[in-house]
Amino acid sequence: MKNYTQTEIRSFSLPRLKTLCDDIREEIFHAVSECGGHLASNLGAVELTVALFRAFDFPADKVVFDVGHQCYTYKLLTGRAPLFRTLRKEGGISGFPKREESPYDAYGTGHAGTAISAALGLAKARDLKGEAHDVIAVVGDGSFQNGLIYEALNSLKILNTKVLIILNDNGMSISPTAGGAHEILDELKQGALEDVALFEHFGLMYRGPVNGNDLEELLPALSEAKELLKEGSVLLHVVTKKGQGYAFSENAPVETHGVNPRPESKTEYSAALGEELMRLAEGDKRIAVVTAAMTDSLGLRDFFRKYPDRAFDVGICEEHATVLAAALAAGGMKPYYAVYSTFLERSIDEVIHDICGQKLPVTLCIDRAGITGPDGETHQGVFDLSLLSSIPNLTVAIPGNVGEFRTLLKLSKDFSAPLAIRYPRMGTEGGENPFKIGEFEVLHSTSSDIVLFAAGERCISLGRKLLKAAEKEGFSFTLVNARFLKPLDTALLGSRPEPYVITLEDNLLCGGLGDAVSRFYAGSGKTVLSFGYRDAFIPHGEYPSLSEKYGLSFEEILETLRELHARG
Amino acid sequence: MKNYTQTEIRSFSLPRLKTLCDDIREEIFHAVSECGGHLASNLGAVELTVALFRAFDFPADKVVFDVGHQCYTYKLLTGRAPLFRTLRKEGGISGFPKREESPYDAYGTGHAGTAISAALGLAKARDLKGEAHDVIAVVGDGSFQNGLIYEALNSLKILNTKVLIILNDNGMSISPTAGGAHEILDELKQGALEDVALFEHFGLMYRGPVNGNDLEELLPALSEAKELLKEGSVLLHVVTKKGQGYAFSENAPVETHGVNPRPESKTEYSAALGEELMRLAEGDKRIAVVTAAMTDSLGLRDFFRKYPDRAFDVGICEEHATVLAAALAAGGMKPYYAVYSTFLERSIDEVIHDICGQKLPVTLCIDRAGITGPDGETHQGVFDLSLLSSIPNLTVAIPGNVGEFRTLLKLSKDFSAPLAIRYPRMGTEGGENPFKIGEFEVLHSTSSDIVLFAAGERCISLGRKLLKAAEKEGFSFTLVNARFLKPLDTALLGSRPEPYVITLEDNLLCGGLGDAVSRFYAGSGKTVLSFGYRDAFIPHGEYPSLSEKYGLSFEEILETLRELHARG
Repeated sequence: MKNYTQTEIRSFSLPRLKTLCDDIREEIFHAVSECGGHLASNLGAVELTVALFRAFDFPADKVVFDVGHQCYTYKLLTGRAPLFRTLRKEGGISGFPKREESPYDAYGTGHAGTAISAALGLAKARDLKGEAHDVIAVVGDGSFQNGLIYEALNSLKILNTKVLIILNDNGMSISPTAGGAHEILDELKQGALEDVALFEHFGLMYRGPVNGNDLEELLPALSEAKELLKEGSVLLHVVTKKGQGYAFSENAPVETHGVNPRPESKTEYSAALGEELMRLAEGDKRIAVVTAAMTDSLGLRDFFRKYPDRAFDVGICEEHATVLAAALAAGGMKPYYAVYSTFLERSIDEVIHDICGQKLPVTLCIDRAGITGPDGETHQGVFDLSLLSSIPNLTVAIPGNVGEFRTLLKLSKDFSAPLAIRYPRMGTEGGENPFKIGEFEVLHSTSSDIVLFAAGERCISLGRKLLKAAEKEGFSFTLVNARFLKPLDTALLGSRPEPYVITLEDNLLCGGLGDAVSRFYAGSGKTVLSFGYRDAFIPHGEYPSLSEKYGLSFEEILETLRELHARG
Repeated sequence: MKNYTQTEIRSFSLPRLKTLCDDIREEIFHAVSECGGHLASNLGAVELTVALFRAFDFPADKVVFDVGHQCYTYKLLTGRAPLFRTLRKEGGISGFPKREESPYDAYGTGHAGTAISAALGLAKARDLKGEAHDVIAVVGDGSFQNGLIYEALNSLKILNTKVLIILNDNGMSISPTAGGAHEILDELKQGALEDVALFEHFGLMYRGPVNGNDLEELLPALSEAKELLKEGSVLLHVVTKKGQGYAFSENAPVETHGVNPRPESKTEYSAALGEELMRLAEGDKRIAVVTAAMTDSLGLRDFFRKYPDRAFDVGICEEHATVLAAALAAGGMKPYYAVYSTFLERSIDEVIHDICGQKLPVTLCIDRAGITGPDGETHQGVFDLSLLSSIPNLTVAIPGNVGEFRTLLKLSKDFSAPLAIRYPRMGTEGGENPFKIGEFEVLHSTSSDIVLFAAGERCISLGRKLLKAAEKEGFSFTLVNARFLKPLDTALLGSRPEPYVITLEDNLLCGGLGDAVSRFYAGSGKTVLSFGYRDAFIPHGEYPSLSEKYGLSFEEILETLRELHARG
């Protein structure tokens, strides 16, 4: 798609604007087909974004896109059209707003619910600096369930500044939106004026609902909102259709929320999660599942269908989901809270305070752990081991393949304390060999000076490659599947005779397996060398390349092995 | 106070119940005077709790106290009266609800906003198990601003169960409650029926307001609520007076929120924070302060008075406070987010995603770090180093005394990246010697085989005591003030000749200074032995005793020093 300037966009007639919207849709569709990405939510927000360019003046005015799944049109209209087919590719443009990418991106997002807080901060800074631009937050109705949004609304009057909040209501988060907040939005769509008072209490003038896919409605509504903004903060309720303009996407918004080519030859851990939990649930009425606006992508679609009374999707409310799981356990149930690694960060306090502080038998099923790739910084699952390792009462498991994951889930049923299992998206099935909680496995035993502890499928695979390379060069090492970060297999560790210890993990180096093994061997005279990701935010790209670059470099580790072997 | 059974309480006439309330108030007052604790909020909830015992049957029925600052009466009436003067003392009863303390404590609390989620989990478990008891959440109006509460309310209809929510509205959190949510409560108190619809959207029948310090109003209101609960979830709005019945406390609810004897001979870090930020703010209009319902206890009372336009107290909304600070920085301000260590846990995701992910120059002023003592498990500040150490772009400072804290704050003004400063409540002034970010300080230099790195004032003091003891025994070691966890002073570390390295930190061992120093020295052949808290939740008690018991044992460390000296 060609680059447009704001001056051009402003000069366009309404029919020309509609053509622009068609062009944008086509470009988004092609880019997502090539690069993956978020299709439906971006298709839904095309007219809204184009209309924003008519009413406001970027980058002087600032817009914050909550989550960022609606920012593609904005990127296309702010000089990034020529680069758009590099979307989510290493070195290419990010799928999310990113300050360092463009001066048009006033505030970076990725996780839900931050936009109103961020808009308030930008607006307050503007006021204090005596500036005069407008600040806009675009928030999906899915995020409207999130506690952060409520905290920000609550503080509007305290902060005494002016922001425009555009509620982009498509009736969906990743899954269809439900709950009390949604009901209020539905009432508003049906013209229930008494609910408008609610927003007034929070210091907002409510306007809408407006058809957000119709420029003829949107343009005057945004002009009016801009005028009103001189008086105070405004909430403009815009109703859009997720996937608008792309027939397949309109009919299948869940399936097309995120588009990612799926490799055929591997299993998804999420599928195993669903299968095993269904099996457990059949024989045990205590088994329950909690998620925060994700069911399908966590492998739980069938569970929700078969056991609707024991499956709870509470919307994008990770903190509430965590406490709910804790309390279900306190009430005698056996809950599984399934969540992406990156979104587990939202409820670290509740994992500490509610689950582990009370030693409640909740199982955390942490999907998309390790480098996830094209979503970039805000979605890499590389913090979980670091954040969980210090939490008392918590067992942290890292299955070596899908079969081990199945074994862990079976073990979890009778495990009476908090358990976290972290795994990447894709894996290989492997055999289902039995083991106990806390037990490592020697995968390759040899008499040498080096033992290598690898955590998780990706690192075991790297370990095997290193072993092959070493053997080709005439030396070898012992390879161990370090299935648990907590507890470590202290019996096995204590009995290893090798003076040199290597650890590999698909996580930031700080606070993970390497640190734990080092701590165990402190004072023993052994040399422990750890490999994991260095102290940096890891941008978008693909796992193999990013992991090489950020700390799991095959050549570098092999060189270390060679040196240790030569020393030995 | 004597122990009462529920049967006795149920047999009491109204005048006798009033006498009971007087007795309870007196006991709370005396216990708090002796042991410290939360006075005003507990005094306000006496009648409410007594009335709960008339309407409900504990422990069959379950009650969850949000935060837990209103649970003293409940403890007194559930068999813990004879132990009540051990409140918050090591081995005595906890100041918070605690499952392991009593079968009457259905769910433990300490941090704000969890109660409705917890009540929903308990209620859902009840339903699934085919049980029939009632579940009650008692929530203060301060917590009603918290995002978790909103997430829980949002899910009421999704979860389709029945709970009684008692909103204990005293118009105060730690500081007076403000914001949109509060305004809705105020309207309700004035009889604005249209706001009742709001709760109905969330699936709640609203009843009230009721005078919560008047048994004659409370008893029938609770009976009615209990009846209604058969139909669906109920919100009973109870208006109480924080500090009710104790004249001094009624007039000074902020000062008497928590009562703690203050040692005279030391400085409070919080006072230094307030002084330095006032000084900075005078010469620099970018300086702003953000807090979450705490001003006085963080030392910011004068700042809020002098610079009201640059001081933001957003209520018990730590996540929002964190994003607001990030966005203020994105807008060109220089914000300081002051928070207790334990409450920083609430916004770890926002510290990662918003502040550090965007490398925004927010300064986190983390008060009450390390073992805080009598508040117990839910309030120890022993996770911050573990949680922060893995976050890229973050500098983590641990001042060695109040003077160094002042220096750090001065340095922070022109520091253009995220900075965390963690400190305990009390300290000694010390001198204000200049140093650079990342610079350690050799406090005692000697030619020996041992170097000891101590982080923070408490550990430096322990290090000095150990040094004195060692010298008495005829050996010595080099003592270093490890002022930064991130970055480490790699120049100093790299140049140390000693083969034996000891680290001390007032934090959980995992993920802290010891791990970082070990990682630095990996492969060097040095022996690194780290001391900090072991992998356990640390209950209530006092710092000296708890730190000894949980990992900073003077004798144990001295013995280690002796052994290393003998080896050398």
